[in-house]
Amino acid sequence: MFAIGIDIGGTSIKGAIVNDTGKVLTRFAMDVNKNASGEDEVNRFCDVMIKSINDYDNSIKLEGIGIGMPGILDMDKGVVITSPNLPKWNGLHISKLISKRMGLPVYINNDANVATLGEARFGSGKEYSNLIMLTLGTGVGGGIIIDNKLYDGNKHMGAELGHMVIRVNGEKCGCGRRGCFEAYASATALIRDTKKEMDKCPDSLMHDVSKELGKINAKVVFEASRRGDKAAIRVMKRYVNYLSEGILNYCNIFRPEVVVLSGGVANEGDYLLDQVRHYLKNHKYGMKGSPKVELKVASLGYDSGKIGAACLVFE
Amino acid sequence: MFAIGIDIGGTSIKGAIVNDTGKVLTRFAMDVNKNASGEDEVNRFCDVMIKSINDYDNSIKLEGIGIGMPGILDMDKGVVITSPNLPKWNGLHISKLISKRMGLPVYINNDANVATLGEARFGSGKEYSNLIMLTLGTGVGGGIIIDNKLYDGNKHMGAELGHMVIRVNGEKCGCGRRGCFEAYASATALIRDTKKEMDKCPDSLMHDVSKELGKINAKVVFEASRRGDKAAIRVMKRYVNYLSEGILNYCNIFRPEVVVLSGGVANEGDYLLDQVRHYLKNHKYGMKGSPKVELKVASLGYDSGKIGAACLVFE
Repeated sequence: MFAIGIDIGGTSIKGAIVNDTGKVLTRFAMDVNKNASGEDEVNRFCDVMIKSINDYDNSIKLEGIGIGMPGILDMDKGVVITSPNLPKWNGLHISKLISKRMGLPVYINNDANVATLGEARFGSGKEYSNLIMLTLGTGVGGGIIIDNKLYDGNKHMGAELGHMVIRVNGEKCGCGRRGCFEAYASATALIRDTKKEMDKCPDSLMHDVSKELGKINAKVVFEASRRGDKAAIRVMKRYVNYLSEGILNYCNIFRPEVVVLSGGVANEGDYLLDQVRHYLKNHKYGMKGSPKVELKVASLGYDSGKIGAACLVFE
Repeated sequence: MFAIGIDIGGTSIKGAIVNDTGKVLTRFAMDVNKNASGEDEVNRFCDVMIKSINDYDNSIKLEGIGIGMPGILDMDKGVVITSPNLPKWNGLHISKLISKRMGLPVYINNDANVATLGEARFGSGKEYSNLIMLTLGTGVGGGIIIDNKLYDGNKHMGAELGHMVIRVNGEKCGCGRRGCFEAYASATALIRDTKKEMDKCPDSLMHDVSKELGKINAKVVFEASRRGDKAAIRVMKRYVNYLSEGILNYCNIFRPEVVVLSGGVANEGDYLLDQVRHYLKNHKYGMKGSPKVELKVASLGYDSGKIGAACLVFE
């Protein structure tokens, strides 16, 4: 079986033909023009898609198209309610539009759920029936797999795992509350704390590293901390503390078999994970007698969204 | 169909014959002797049970026995691993023991899960397929129903809904972490905060109310606050704030159809619930476009554990 998986982001739309063993056969992409209407952009992407299918194999039998997209969606009707990064798409009947152009059934779900499905079926989660995925990016996205099924709550509006308050009255969050997990464990939060510490410590190596990298991003603190910079180590310690407390919460709530971390920050791999594992081990990693929860980095990288979107079709 | 539901607590064991429409046909109970062995106490309760069955109807056909019990259990093997309030029961093969004496299959689960099952099948949750129950008592217990099924995580060790940190580095919790929901939303936490405020405010009405009641319990702050006492209103406000933040977290994580509150504090009913509803409404009760989550008080009262335990048999 073959399907198309589409991963819509704020700056580009990426797609792929994927088979039902999770293999990506061909990839295609298009930059988004934020000033154009959602309808125009989707039509333009359909052109790209049609050309790519024909270039790859114009006799391929596709079962359907799956889409992962950020924002608030009416998944049953296939409508974008609000998408903060693509405001011109608000109200767009995206599934109907693509289905009509392509003559295929279209399924949509939010980007974090779709990436979780990809990792659960063909990535780091494939050996487990119960998992939590946390995507540490601009925000913190989440996905929940229970008994091998995606769980996303009433009307698909749950699994907002970044919006669990871990510090009442804490840092402001984009959602309107204060102290959300996202406000401490996202790359955005890490960069905010990096900048604060750099302002306080003009001698920190973080200044040199950010000059080398040409900007202040999440890599600055990791690199400076690897080189032994005390200020960077303080920022890392605080980040690991909050990230781990959030993970511990999800262990106690779900007791999954595995927690999978994805997103730019998670790509730091064992340098980050070992510090988190150390914290978890020393801070009541579950109740007495509880089975251990594994901690892993997502393995599909940037393909998890496209592969997961194709899974919406296969299931 | 008929089954026996048993609700084991730190001071007494309660049981009932329940039919499969959730009706309690007869109740029986026994005080626990904490100095006796678990085996002796369970045997003594079996005598009470046998007598009660014979007194009720010695020809009744029972399908089995369900047990709800606090502590860490091996539910598959029916063994008490550790029970903080009944330390002499640690290691007890409770299911085997009762099954042998009674000649019936025995099922066991923790008390919070069992009470949730009772409310979900025959109480405040019976019209819903997805619900969260929070029991506000000595601790905060929790139960999760997803697609009409009890969800309790890997090896039944999840659904520890009281042990989600809502204030990193906050109040000490019995579990060993700091800042758990339980450390702010339990009756124990409310009493701790009541006492603190009473020490600070010698003129508070809470002193009079506690003298009337003969002790300082969770009722003191409710009664004094109903009478307009400013210090009590401050304690209530803080309690409602933390309780509501925890509930909001569970809305964002699960987006259930309903959150059911039980336990002594929840019995204050609408006086408490209206304040919580007011807070939720003004603090981003879910994401934009999200379906509303209902908030209800458990309706089975002290029978929820016994009825829920019987449900373990029927299912």
